[in-house]
Amino acid sequence: MSTAAASSPAAYTGSAAIALTPEALRAHWQGHRRLTRRVIEAFPEDQLFTFAVGGMRSFGVLALEMLSMAAPMVRGSVTGEWETTFDRAPRPKAELLKAWDESTAEIDALWGQIPPARFQETTTAFGQYTAPLYELLLYCVDNEIHHRGQGYVYLRALGITPPPFFERE
Amino acid sequence: MSTAAASSPAAYTGSAAIALTPEALRAHWQGHRRLTRRVIEAFPEDQLFTFAVGGMRSFGVLALEMLSMAAPMVRGSVTGEWETTFDRAPRPKAELLKAWDESTAEIDALWGQIPPARFQETTTAFGQYTAPLYELLLYCVDNEIHHRGQGYVYLRALGITPPPFFERE
Repeated sequence: MSTAAASSPAAYTGSAAIALTPEALRAHWQGHRRLTRRVIEAFPEDQLFTFAVGGMRSFGVLALEMLSMAAPMVRGSVTGEWETTFDRAPRPKAELLKAWDESTAEIDALWGQIPPARFQETTTAFGQYTAPLYELLLYCVDNEIHHRGQGYVYLRALGITPPPFFERE
Repeated sequence: MSTAAASSPAAYTGSAAIALTPEALRAHWQGHRRLTRRVIEAFPEDQLFTFAVGGMRSFGVLALEMLSMAAPMVRGSVTGEWETTFDRAPRPKAELLKAWDESTAEIDALWGQIPPARFQETTTAFGQYTAPLYELLLYCVDNEIHHRGQGYVYLRALGITPPPFFERE
């Protein structure tokens, strides 16, 4: 800890220092999820599971991957039971958005049941990913941002203006 | 707080609950920055500032934007002085990578000088972005992931396999 920090009356050190609380992480992620929902909405129905650039996966398939990680990760964090789906079959946009909204509600309902101390505990998710729980949760967020950024390119390539990145309400 | 959390011996409530410590946020970001460095490296010299998809900015310009946000945000968090650059002129890849490495070292050197309590304080960065400091820092990380995901599409469109997303060492 630097002299500057140690001399600040507001400063404290060690494990009590907080960058993000569990609630801040939930709110941050749900802000991103609202934006991702708008990106799904922005795709024309007939391009959602067909269009891609450079031989990559369609945005519909990428959104299904996000769904297969998000609520299942939170559920596993609470119950210790790790179940997900590998079904990436195309479906109507309305069905995808409905699943997205159900996932949003499930994350909100379960989040408060994650014991706060568990965020720092080394956890094995889905039988194969071992890291502190906060890293596993961030991986879901980061993977969503990463693939949504790809969705922005697909939309631009289709001549569609994507929703503003900074708008999360 | 749920009954499950309240009954856990490891659980605690309120402001002491931690998802990420300041050090965890720094380490997480620097892991992403190592990956972004590899994406810069993966671009052919003659495509870094020229190639794009759908009329978007080149990856070189996007990387310069990341640089203009990262160390300047951390510097401002420590000093309260907000200075950045809007120079996006093309430059050799080696020069961009050198600037990237200098930025990495500056972030590491300054990070510990951010008083821990400041992460929760509402801050105005660069005279115009007002939010809790942790949100401003996360915005830098998220913006980097977002645009790097676009760089992945550019690389695929160029026939180049991007570095693995999960590899952060």
